[in-house]
Amino acid sequence: MMETSTKDFVIGLSLAIASCFFIGSSFIIKKLGLLRLRGSSSTPAADGGFGYLRDWVWWTGLITMGLGEASNFAAYAFAPAALVTPLGALSILVSAVLAPKFLNEKLNLLGKLGCMLCMLGACVIVIHAPKEGDVKSLQDLNKKIFESGFLYYVLVVVVLTMYSIKFIVPRYGKTNVAVYIFICSSIGSLSVMCCKGLGLSIRKSISNSEPFLNKSFLMFILALIICITIQMNYLNKALDSFSSNLVNPVHYIFFTSFVILASSILFQEWRSIASIDVFATLVGLSIVIIALFLISAFNDFQITLNELY
Amino acid sequence: MMETSTKDFVIGLSLAIASCFFIGSSFIIKKLGLLRLRGSSSTPAADGGFGYLRDWVWWTGLITMGLGEASNFAAYAFAPAALVTPLGALSILVSAVLAPKFLNEKLNLLGKLGCMLCMLGACVIVIHAPKEGDVKSLQDLNKKIFESGFLYYVLVVVVLTMYSIKFIVPRYGKTNVAVYIFICSSIGSLSVMCCKGLGLSIRKSISNSEPFLNKSFLMFILALIICITIQMNYLNKALDSFSSNLVNPVHYIFFTSFVILASSILFQEWRSIASIDVFATLVGLSIVIIALFLISAFNDFQITLNELY
Repeated sequence: MMETSTKDFVIGLSLAIASCFFIGSSFIIKKLGLLRLRGSSSTPAADGGFGYLRDWVWWTGLITMGLGEASNFAAYAFAPAALVTPLGALSILVSAVLAPKFLNEKLNLLGKLGCMLCMLGACVIVIHAPKEGDVKSLQDLNKKIFESGFLYYVLVVVVLTMYSIKFIVPRYGKTNVAVYIFICSSIGSLSVMCCKGLGLSIRKSISNSEPFLNKSFLMFILALIICITIQMNYLNKALDSFSSNLVNPVHYIFFTSFVILASSILFQEWRSIASIDVFATLVGLSIVIIALFLISAFNDFQITLNELY
Repeated sequence: MMETSTKDFVIGLSLAIASCFFIGSSFIIKKLGLLRLRGSSSTPAADGGFGYLRDWVWWTGLITMGLGEASNFAAYAFAPAALVTPLGALSILVSAVLAPKFLNEKLNLLGKLGCMLCMLGACVIVIHAPKEGDVKSLQDLNKKIFESGFLYYVLVVVVLTMYSIKFIVPRYGKTNVAVYIFICSSIGSLSVMCCKGLGLSIRKSISNSEPFLNKSFLMFILALIICITIQMNYLNKALDSFSSNLVNPVHYIFFTSFVILASSILFQEWRSIASIDVFATLVGLSIVIIALFLISAFNDFQITLNELY
């Protein structure tokens, strides 16, 4: 029993890290593709052109992204969400490291320090985050959804999101970065829970040869599509209105917090681990947040080690 | 047994943290005293004046410093050196936080991030550093000194230090910050081991009513005085030749590394703890080092959160 869950943890962790490499490099590859097109005669994407659709580099980026999202999805089936989601920060690290090599975008000293801190914080999270959830079967999951108070969480998220869209977005959406990101992260936490449920139901139906297309599977798929549509819509709005250097760290903070909250209500992943581990995971998260801030916010500064002294 | 060592750990940890508060605030108080004198008619210290000796603020600073060094010394008697030494970073944090309040020296955004990281890294170190050493009595310590290979470490340090003083200092001392700091930190690690020995022998002679002024006690005192004299001499040379913004983090890195090395040879504090804890302590140390760098090196930059966006 113990061996199975350690194996699951290692598989989930590897998938999560692999997904960061795919997603991080996909940003670089897609941008490379767009830059190549600038040299050619077609209309650039920013002006509404679709020339990138005929470019193989751009497509490689898209496929890499797909592979990344797929392994991220699979990671949720093996390891707790409270472990997989925080590690998403590593994809920003990967693209920060690759950008100077392939896009000639210089990473300054603070960016380099941020990258180191990002890895160090991720180590702390991996050491302390919960190693296994409580859910062993789909029946168990369905039971949890109805008994754990998770439905109240969903209700609160839906009500708050609708209220924000109706009343807060028109007044503060374009001036306060937290508004769009709140909507996209809180709904995003529901997507992650759907992924978790879907992944579990696929795993269980493969290993136990249960029927694949049962009621809860379809429910998860439907909910996932709705959530991702809303989430992407508001993430794009945030990126349209604010610099990605601001959106990235704020989105990471909101998204990770909501996923950990949702996951702790639904799976009670934290109940089985010591309070010192809960504290240390929060320490690791804070380190990663500061690291992302260092990578993103000081982009425009020209700081090298030699200039300091 | 377990309870005694947990109690020792808590006492040692509290003393170590208290010592950082004393030492950190002593920097501020002493500087306040020197600044007050600038307003008066006496010769400033930088010009060789001794007016500060008649100033009560300067004396308060000196006494605070003495209290800090005393609690630091006492901390070594209760907790492993591999825990107490890394926490020394917190004294830089304390003075960085107090300086804007009392000296009107502004702490910029990177300094603030560094302070947060310093605390987060210290948390990781406290969680993972060894909780108790192996030494229970003075006999035990004497046995360890002769059997553990620690004498080889002392020999290597003494030979390397003498070689550096004779051949490397004249050529590179004024241009490479690592030279002076190497000498002062490697000898400093011997001071810490003397403190540890002294503290243990004082504790044991109080609790067991053993004779106080025995041979090993006098040996420790003599060695400590020699080591501290050399150490202070070269630390002052380093501070004379280089900016304290550079000396502080480099000294922390060298000093902590040498103390952990010496302590792991002599007390084998690491043998009883899991390799994951060794790794995590190194992670915590790296976080603190980056934090100290952020606090010290970017001092002259005018960066606030509002300017970034």
